[in-house]
Amino acid sequence: MRRRIHLILLLVLMVGFFPGLALGADPSSGELKVMVDTVWVLIAGMLVFWMNAGFALVESGLCQSKNCVNILAKNFIVFAISSLAFYVIGWGLMFGDGNPYIGTQGLWMVGGADNSPATGEAYQGVYSAINWTGVPIWTKFFFQLVFAGTAATIVSGAVAERIKFLSFIVFSFILVGLMYPTTGHWIWGGGWLAKLGFWDFAGSTVVHSMGGWAALAGVIVLGARKGKFVKGRVHPIPGHNLTSATLGALILWLGWFGFNPGSTMAAAAGDIGRIAVVTNFGAAAGILSSTVVAWILIGKPDLSMIINGCLAGLVAVTAPCAFIGMGSAIVIGLIGGALAVVAVLFFDKIKIDDPVGALSVHLVNGIWGTLALGLFAQDVYTPNTTGNGLFFGGGAKLLIAQLTGVTAVGAFTLIISLVVWYALKLVMGIRVTEEEEREGLDHGEHGNICYPDFVQAASVMKS
Amino acid sequence: MRRRIHLILLLVLMVGFFPGLALGADPSSGELKVMVDTVWVLIAGMLVFWMNAGFALVESGLCQSKNCVNILAKNFIVFAISSLAFYVIGWGLMFGDGNPYIGTQGLWMVGGADNSPATGEAYQGVYSAINWTGVPIWTKFFFQLVFAGTAATIVSGAVAERIKFLSFIVFSFILVGLMYPTTGHWIWGGGWLAKLGFWDFAGSTVVHSMGGWAALAGVIVLGARKGKFVKGRVHPIPGHNLTSATLGALILWLGWFGFNPGSTMAAAAGDIGRIAVVTNFGAAAGILSSTVVAWILIGKPDLSMIINGCLAGLVAVTAPCAFIGMGSAIVIGLIGGALAVVAVLFFDKIKIDDPVGALSVHLVNGIWGTLALGLFAQDVYTPNTTGNGLFFGGGAKLLIAQLTGVTAVGAFTLIISLVVWYALKLVMGIRVTEEEEREGLDHGEHGNICYPDFVQAASVMKS
Amino acid sequence: MRRRIHLILLLVLMVGFFPGLALGADPSSGELKVMVDTVWVLIAGMLVFWMNAGFALVESGLCQSKNCVNILAKNFIVFAISSLAFYVIGWGLMFGDGNPYIGTQGLWMVGGADNSPATGEAYQGVYSAINWTGVPIWTKFFFQLVFAGTAATIVSGAVAERIKFLSFIVFSFILVGLMYPTTGHWIWGGGWLAKLGFWDFAGSTVVHSMGGWAALAGVIVLGARKGKFVKGRVHPIPGHNLTSATLGALILWLGWFGFNPGSTMAAAAGDIGRIAVVTNFGAAAGILSSTVVAWILIGKPDLSMIINGCLAGLVAVTAPCAFIGMGSAIVIGLIGGALAVVAVLFFDKIKIDDPVGALSVHLVNGIWGTLALGLFAQDVYTPNTTGNGLFFGGGAKLLIAQLTGVTAVGAFTLIISLVVWYALKLVMGIRVTEEEEREGLDHGEHGNICYPDFVQAASVMKS
Repeated sequence: MRRRIHLILLLVLMVGFFPGLALGADPSSGELKVMVDTVWVLIAGMLVFWMNAGFALVESGLCQSKNCVNILAKNFIVFAISSLAFYVIGWGLMFGDGNPYIGTQGLWMVGGADNSPATGEAYQGVYSAINWTGVPIWTKFFFQLVFAGTAATIVSGAVAERIKFLSFIVFSFILVGLMYPTTGHWIWGGGWLAKLGFWDFAGSTVVHSMGGWAALAGVIVLGARKGKFVKGRVHPIPGHNLTSATLGALILWLGWFGFNPGSTMAAAAGDIGRIAVVTNFGAAAGILSSTVVAWILIGKPDLSMIINGCLAGLVAVTAPCAFIGMGSAIVIGLIGGALAVVAVLFFDKIKIDDPVGALSVHLVNGIWGTLALGLFAQDVYTPNTTGNGLFFGGGAKLLIAQLTGVTAVGAFTLIISLVVWYALKLVMGIRVTEEEEREGLDHGEHGNICYPDFVQAASVMKS
Repeated sequence: MRRRIHLILLLVLMVGFFPGLALGADPSSGELKVMVDTVWVLIAGMLVFWMNAGFALVESGLCQSKNCVNILAKNFIVFAISSLAFYVIGWGLMFGDGNPYIGTQGLWMVGGADNSPATGEAYQGVYSAINWTGVPIWTKFFFQLVFAGTAATIVSGAVAERIKFLSFIVFSFILVGLMYPTTGHWIWGGGWLAKLGFWDFAGSTVVHSMGGWAALAGVIVLGARKGKFVKGRVHPIPGHNLTSATLGALILWLGWFGFNPGSTMAAAAGDIGRIAVVTNFGAAAGILSSTVVAWILIGKPDLSMIINGCLAGLVAVTAPCAFIGMGSAIVIGLIGGALAVVAVLFFDKIKIDDPVGALSVHLVNGIWGTLALGLFAQDVYTPNTTGNGLFFGGGAKLLIAQLTGVTAVGAFTLIISLVVWYALKLVMGIRVTEEEEREGLDHGEHGNICYPDFVQAASVMKS
Repeated sequence: MRRRIHLILLLVLMVGFFPGLALGADPSSGELKVMVDTVWVLIAGMLVFWMNAGFALVESGLCQSKNCVNILAKNFIVFAISSLAFYVIGWGLMFGDGNPYIGTQGLWMVGGADNSPATGEAYQGVYSAINWTGVPIWTKFFFQLVFAGTAATIVSGAVAERIKFLSFIVFSFILVGLMYPTTGHWIWGGGWLAKLGFWDFAGSTVVHSMGGWAALAGVIVLGARKGKFVKGRVHPIPGHNLTSATLGALILWLGWFGFNPGSTMAAAAGDIGRIAVVTNFGAAAGILSSTVVAWILIGKPDLSMIINGCLAGLVAVTAPCAFIGMGSAIVIGLIGGALAVVAVLFFDKIKIDDPVGALSVHLVNGIWGTLALGLFAQDVYTPNTTGNGLFFGGGAKLLIAQLTGVTAVGAFTLIISLVVWYALKLVMGIRVTEEEEREGLDHGEHGNICYPDFVQAASVMKS
């Protein structure tokens, strides 16, 4: 009674992958490295996937209960849409060999030649921009997919409480399938910005400010929620569930330990722990400064401000996390948290209605973090890569490259997004009716009530 | 001041395990492989453990607030019960050497001879059916325990809002200690179905349809909730907290990245990333098809339908995930998501009252996924194991084996479960009183109110 | 079009760390071990970080809705404070070389000499007490930081619903920066208790009872909440959200799989799975006994009691988890769960007002678990370390050492905490006004309402 069906299966699985690994043979050093790298990158990718739950809770918690189902549904379905879009075309556009502006080979369904986990000279395939990591192709895809999904999720919060469900789905498909991979190709796909000496280790620009620009375009085309700006005065619309929002922020903080340290895409022992601590200091500093600044500017340490301060610090250290020291991380996070509070007040002032502060967190701090790399980078952490930033004797060269990248990605994404949002507005409409907005998108878009057993406050009913 | 108590401890820990690993000696290739495999399997097991939170939230969120504590308590305690039951007897029945129908050696408290992590011919012990994975015995136990716990949790949702707390506990003990290990032995314990050529990589049948059949038996014996079917009409009872339900679904989705890729029980670099992406496509496709089908059949994209569509897609790709390509995963998920929506409506129609859709997700799609393996399997992914399925030129042989397994496990589990539920009904009663059901099980079973600070809607009070 | 910027970057990253790892060269066995260990320790640390979410939810869920934002904010900001305090001074005091009572070298900002991941004799640096683990310095710091943060979080629950936000922040800084590292140095920093033969594998005393004593001091100095003890009678104040509390408990249970098995600080394959199962049995047994004892003592299986029983079992097995068998884990957990229920009733009786049961869980069971090590330890699991405990033929020697440690840490922490709390009371006040307490700290401290869209029960308004 000693059948070994599974042993056979396992061996088959492994031999299929490591031709040298026959029955009983121990793996080689190179094979072991691939194993460790793959485990690390996959788990890091799972942590980033988990950020979907964080975004869903932060966004829905900071909005009204009558729109909660809609926001949850958007955040739930957006990763399904992203998965399809990035598989069908996005991956190929971003990592396929091509020109400095776009990938042109292996476009469809990750279908190009590839002999991953071979790296460097040994690599023979069409996704050479990502041949520096020695993990198999589907592990690469998984890790990059969860990043692409994040970009789309950023948009969700800013356009919440008034966007049509179907229009959001269509925009997300376009963003993940076409727009994100294009600017991503410029930077992580070996394109013109990479050649220029622009650096973005884990995506302050590739993911966060890019998503932020697309969100800004959406907010501009959609307009503000009814009742937010009345007769020139800002009328705050408080979030319905700060338990959700806080849990969501802790999920995002956890997920960032996959986002940043995982962007090594290898179990680089000397770096992943250091990057994790840098990341943590970004968050911690963002919390502290946003607490203080909110206390000063609005009189009390408002929790939604602290939450956004935390996320702001995380976004800000994302670009430079591998290239900076702990002190720099703290400074960058402190500035990031303060920026978030000020930006929330600023966007209100200029009547840009962003219900959850997504622009203050992802756009403003995506830009800040990318520029901060040009200020705080130190050659000592990764010799012969970024060089030193302005504050460490490297001059303005790096900062200028960073500024170029920020501007180029911003201009491209804002313009294309405005075009796409306007086109959607013409073709299918992007905003729900006034009546639906008043009564809540949950009923109008989904036929659901999020919390039917609880009596809603009168203000919610009529607002 | 350089005491090295902990160094000594660590060395002791490691030397106890690797006799060759003396002070300062580097581990061998085989030892390193065991280390990587163990880290991967343990973390994957933790992700599956985390699914307990997902089930607790999906189930309680889709039920009424007056029964929320009871559902949470059931989902919380069930893993404690499962841990005991699987330790005391379940593991031995499932993986102990024995006959094709049941394990008979090393039955009690994982107490049989075992020299894991030795594999294959080198293994000398009584749990030879699981000697194909080179991880230590307690890591094997942990990973299998979290699977066993999942099966019991499935039952919880279907019998919610009317079952007695203690009766559920007793049933769960029997399920995890006796029933699950029996059918599990047939398949993963090297029993008669394994010999027949039946395949179930990660448990569409071993875990999901098995739990689903036990749940169906419970629903039949318990009957519907009061007020669900009145004068031949279906009266929907909406869930009280779709934030909970959505978060729960995202937890389950995350957990599935442990469930499926972890079922390699080794850091099989070439497979775990691929299986993760297959799993993700199952979920994504399930979301998309359930959204569309719900939109068509009930007029709007109901969020609870989308959630169940996601879970349905995940259940469906669970059996075949290691053996299929991406396109097949998408097709299987699309069908799974559609099936879930149709099945919810169908069970309502035939007056089977399943408050959370557990039968539609786990039973219907556990069956579908197991059969799908017989249709979509491709030899290329795991040479010399399953062979090709019907759609890839392998003929009906594999499909017939799958059908046999589905039928055998279903018949056995349904019949035994009916007997157990009826016996419990006779001995201790399984349904709460009408008054308790009306007033809520939280107060009746636990003396708790889940949300005492909020005013409940009148309909909840009197329903 | 085959730029390899990232490949260069990765190589730079890895070469910076492994001088021998040039382009294309496979890592050595020792380098691979560092990689696996680092991945494991980092991920375990992330799981412990995740416990912040668990504490936030358990604590806020078991308190009133009008104080929910305040509790969430405390739990959110406390890890930011901990990060700073432990970085600036805590780490050096705890792990810096020095005398048996305190670290005196490399005090500031982890700035001492260090050549981690070198271990044992090869280690040259000032943090020699933690040179037994072969992971890089920042991975060590990350893992120890998340433990330090846990200690501060324990205080949060006990002082909830009446403490001033700012006072809590200041106390947390002192606790993590000065107090925790001091007693931590005695035990994990190679200090006098370590030399005495006191053992605490994962922190029943270092973290849990330490945090519990600090919490007890706070409760004593603060006094009970208004309305809790009226005319000699105990007036229960039920938690506002048992969904939160249950999810929080499941998060903590998951996090403990990092806390305990991760305390190996190495991918010790033969131990981490075993410790995970021991940990799980602590939780499972705690659930079962607290369920039974609550059913007997208060008539029904109250869910908040079951949750605390689970956590109690987890705390209790934390000290001995590496040194005991499965049967012992179950016995320790059973006693732990029962103790938690009895202790909650006892603290109410002596008018110690602990809103969430933090003292019953962390203080009482931290003590119990540390002593249990002296009773249940078995030399067989880790030869030549703890020796056998009293119940396994080792005599009272180990138990006496454990008792000494429990007493010393308790006396020190309680006294210093009382001094600090009284000093804070004098300097800045530690308790909110009666009016603020009645109206809720959310409005008073933060200007927030946690759930503005829901009608609050009248009792909440006026309580």
